[in-house]
Amino acid sequence: MSHIETPYLMFLGDAKDQLAAKTAAGVAHWRPDVCLGQLRMAGCNADLGLPDMSLEAAREAGVRTLVIGVANRGGVISEAWLEVLEQALKLGFDLASGLHNKLADVPRIADLAAAEGRQLFDVRHPTQSFEVGSGRKRPGKRLLGVGTDCSVGKMYATLALEREMKARGLAADFRATGQTGILIAGDGVSVDAVVADFISGAVEWLSPENEPDHWDIIEGQGSLFHASYAGVSLGLLHGAQADALILCHEPTRPHMRGLPEYPVPPIHDCIQRNLEAARLTNSAAVCVGIAVNTSGLPEEEARRFLDETAEAHNLPAVDPVRNGVAPIVDKIQNGASGRLAS
Amino acid sequence: MSHIETPYLMFLGDAKDQLAAKTAAGVAHWRPDVCLGQLRMAGCNADLGLPDMSLEAAREAGVRTLVIGVANRGGVISEAWLEVLEQALKLGFDLASGLHNKLADVPRIADLAAAEGRQLFDVRHPTQSFEVGSGRKRPGKRLLGVGTDCSVGKMYATLALEREMKARGLAADFRATGQTGILIAGDGVSVDAVVADFISGAVEWLSPENEPDHWDIIEGQGSLFHASYAGVSLGLLHGAQADALILCHEPTRPHMRGLPEYPVPPIHDCIQRNLEAARLTNSAAVCVGIAVNTSGLPEEEARRFLDETAEAHNLPAVDPVRNGVAPIVDKIQNGASGRLAS
Repeated sequence: MSHIETPYLMFLGDAKDQLAAKTAAGVAHWRPDVCLGQLRMAGCNADLGLPDMSLEAAREAGVRTLVIGVANRGGVISEAWLEVLEQALKLGFDLASGLHNKLADVPRIADLAAAEGRQLFDVRHPTQSFEVGSGRKRPGKRLLGVGTDCSVGKMYATLALEREMKARGLAADFRATGQTGILIAGDGVSVDAVVADFISGAVEWLSPENEPDHWDIIEGQGSLFHASYAGVSLGLLHGAQADALILCHEPTRPHMRGLPEYPVPPIHDCIQRNLEAARLTNSAAVCVGIAVNTSGLPEEEARRFLDETAEAHNLPAVDPVRNGVAPIVDKIQNGASGRLAS
Repeated sequence: MSHIETPYLMFLGDAKDQLAAKTAAGVAHWRPDVCLGQLRMAGCNADLGLPDMSLEAAREAGVRTLVIGVANRGGVISEAWLEVLEQALKLGFDLASGLHNKLADVPRIADLAAAEGRQLFDVRHPTQSFEVGSGRKRPGKRLLGVGTDCSVGKMYATLALEREMKARGLAADFRATGQTGILIAGDGVSVDAVVADFISGAVEWLSPENEPDHWDIIEGQGSLFHASYAGVSLGLLHGAQADALILCHEPTRPHMRGLPEYPVPPIHDCIQRNLEAARLTNSAAVCVGIAVNTSGLPEEEARRFLDETAEAHNLPAVDPVRNGVAPIVDKIQNGASGRLAS
């Protein structure tokens, strides 16, 4: 995939509520500098807090890409949307979409994009082919987010780490493995959509050899303990050859996401199992911290949970939103002088 | 995928040596009753020991499917092959292929098959879509082959188990997860070609709920210790919800297949890691035996290796080719009266 060009205009369509625009909200949160405005249609109940902007105004403002960061109703792209998307192509915008169904599969859109010389980025669907993972050690340092479950804040935690590391002058790049992350970074691979044989190869491609002190901060997916998706998580661990893991956790979840019969694993077991697997391709892998999404807890309880977690595992434990990730970056910097040690 | 119809005529093309016809040889070995003949072109150096048979003679003999069980030179289907395949379609045969490149992608073949109402089975490429794995426990018993490495005899061992169990009157079905296995069984899923999110879901589909005393004998793929393919192996473990594992091993391998820097793991570690992973979706999973491909050892050494392995792990250890798998089926039968215990 080539890089998605910025600035962006965020298309919210007729999103029925704020949750339907979750992807767009993630992009606007992490890339306020490139999200110049939002385009909302009649019936839209979402709001990113960005200026409302017509396609024509966006063109004046220098926007290059219309980003569809919204779940469409019923899985089909409505006629009303199509008119806006066609108009955007005619005005010279590329389209980038986090939808399950591909823009490239809609003949009206695909044909017009080809005729206008515009690009379509269906970021959930990798278009390039990958090599099988080689397992060969490559220069550069890598950190991977792993989790007790899916959707526990791995993207948020890894983006926060990239931001904090860059603020300290460290060489660090976020590497996106899911659709929201790709729209934020401008490129990446939806690893869960890669053919199974190539999971680790795709991650090797995503985080290639680099300067010895450069950090790739790789967004994780799924969990080794998730009965549906663990294969993706294991391929990610092996392809990343991670020097450092951060364990991400959401403490109020009653069971694994989508699997009522499966309890969330203890943090300790999850760290151990991930280290065990990571050490196949990097024997020096260590865990450098725990990122907890405490949004479901009152502030006092959240603080107590973080304190107890840090003590129990002898690792920094933070909520990236409430506290930032400075203690984890401290640990990475302290470890970087010699071998990273947990 | 619908079931591939038998009997088969085995197409060997212009195979440059016996190894190039490995897939066809596997099918002929395990399904001698349905492989009525072989079709060899000028320059073919492979021989399955089947009667040489023209397409016309095969039609007379009742053959339904021409099976392309041979690696083609240079990855392209040659003009000379195409003439034979077209003739086969015109004579009313379906085509089943274990090639990397798809018959369905060759317009001359695809168009003719459609016109003649014949089916094309590109068994390396799943065509159906799968649900995400549910992790829900389903009735019936399941055994899965796991390995210290790729290509250590998992298919051979699981087919031998199916044969021995059926000979004892047990209800057992081999479930194929790779191209040769699919051509042998007539259906199955190439799990390494499934989109990563659906690995465990594809295996749940492949081995659906069944009678409580029925055994699905599931062909394994890869190894949890293979840096390229472990994600596939983990998805297989979780989707299979295996009651029983057999560990497959090849004792003369200098390193993991294709990965010179990676040693083959100790059998003990491999059993433990596989049980640990399997128990996420079936807490009662046990290992019931070790299948060793001793073809690289002299007979005396092979016997000693099997004896020592059996004693070290307190499990039956057999070479399915040299000794058959009776001791493993004994253990399965002894365990089946109560909980399977290792």
